[in-house]
Amino acid sequence: MAVVKACKILITGANRGLGLEIVKQLTENSFPKQHIFATCRDPDGPKSEALRELVKKHPSAITIIRLDADDPSSVKESAKKVGSLLGNNGLNLLVNNAGIVANGTIQTSSVEDMKNTFNTNVIGPLLIIREYLPYLQMAAKASGIPGMSSNKAAVINISTVAGSMTRMPSIYNQFPTLPYGVSKAGFNMLTVLAAEEFKADEILCMALHPGWVKTELGGDEATLEPKESVEGMLRVIGSLTEKQHGGFMDYSGETVTW
Amino acid sequence: MAVVKACKILITGANRGLGLEIVKQLTENSFPKQHIFATCRDPDGPKSEALRELVKKHPSAITIIRLDADDPSSVKESAKKVGSLLGNNGLNLLVNNAGIVANGTIQTSSVEDMKNTFNTNVIGPLLIIREYLPYLQMAAKASGIPGMSSNKAAVINISTVAGSMTRMPSIYNQFPTLPYGVSKAGFNMLTVLAAEEFKADEILCMALHPGWVKTELGGDEATLEPKESVEGMLRVIGSLTEKQHGGFMDYSGETVTW
Repeated sequence: MAVVKACKILITGANRGLGLEIVKQLTENSFPKQHIFATCRDPDGPKSEALRELVKKHPSAITIIRLDADDPSSVKESAKKVGSLLGNNGLNLLVNNAGIVANGTIQTSSVEDMKNTFNTNVIGPLLIIREYLPYLQMAAKASGIPGMSSNKAAVINISTVAGSMTRMPSIYNQFPTLPYGVSKAGFNMLTVLAAEEFKADEILCMALHPGWVKTELGGDEATLEPKESVEGMLRVIGSLTEKQHGGFMDYSGETVTW
Repeated sequence: MAVVKACKILITGANRGLGLEIVKQLTENSFPKQHIFATCRDPDGPKSEALRELVKKHPSAITIIRLDADDPSSVKESAKKVGSLLGNNGLNLLVNNAGIVANGTIQTSSVEDMKNTFNTNVIGPLLIIREYLPYLQMAAKASGIPGMSSNKAAVINISTVAGSMTRMPSIYNQFPTLPYGVSKAGFNMLTVLAAEEFKADEILCMALHPGWVKTELGGDEATLEPKESVEGMLRVIGSLTEKQHGGFMDYSGETVTW
């Protein structure tokens, strides 16, 4: 089975939901050289308690880093901090998992929700990719292996079928989340353009749909447990090659149409 | 040849480029009952002179309306004004043409450009569709004809292949317009969700790529004259049926993949 062997990994929104579960599963199957930078808005706040508990169990495998995707200076500071902790082999895997959802239709979506989802789900990841790019380039160069893989250098953008023009209309009645869907379509465009821009650097970029998961964001009616979704996503991430560069897949490895 | 026979038409960004050319060609082939609401940010400014000249030639066919897509209160006011001028048969055709472009890559795009393109190219049209919806519904009901067409009730969103996940990567080197592409991907999502939301109202919604046109936005190296692009787009708009509802086509009638 494909596993994630990347040495240095950064996951945003790591204090709860899928982000926390990704950190959990990675540390359970951890390799000696693996280290995880788990970022969240408020490392000392009550919403980060589960992450802090996890770090107590695996103090040498995880470092919590403050990162607020809505605040460009926080993104910059986090990259400076992580950069100082990374070795000369750079950052192998950046998982843009942090995101927010907002409900609404053409008739009801608020301007504020449109702006907030766009800021957090699109501009945030744009700035994060930009600030961490030097470390990803470092990792790609240091690997000495041709081709692309998530163990070498990769950006995984946790997206959703709600950002798919072909899939969202059929679920829109059940999930009237226009601000979320619009922002995730923009996020998907960001992914394919990052893939184009970093092709020569051999940094793999792709979008991943986690399925409909029982988290604060997915709600109680969701069909998947976080465990199952993350097991699938890590399997997919571990198996990626240049063939999936610029692509869009779900947690089971199926291609999602744009 | 299919022609646009819609009675009441509103076009945003109508003072220059493609918007102005659409107004021109519609008035040249005008039907007695046809009336065009040509909107722009600054009807009295120097950038609207060509539109004012056109109105002088066709005073009974065109009304200039102030509409700034970035300003929700301006959108509301415009709809109130147009509503007072429309008869009981409502608005048949809304063309969301106003838009801005901004250059940049992952490494260079400014937060300001990301926000501005999203505001003008996505939130603006969202508010415009919302405010004009009652008049589009009125037109759909008044028509008495089953099915969908641009003569009955339609929203045409002027999009671009730069908003297509499958097309943009291949032109990204030549057109490094990430903020524009990201916003137009969001605009395309808005289009398919509008199509889903207004299906029961029989209001046709679709996205249209005008081609690469010699306008202020397209630049001098573009391959198409505005005349040719608009002739094609009006032919496509005039021929639309429910089969194209929620679709994405170019000025020549070809389907564009998302």
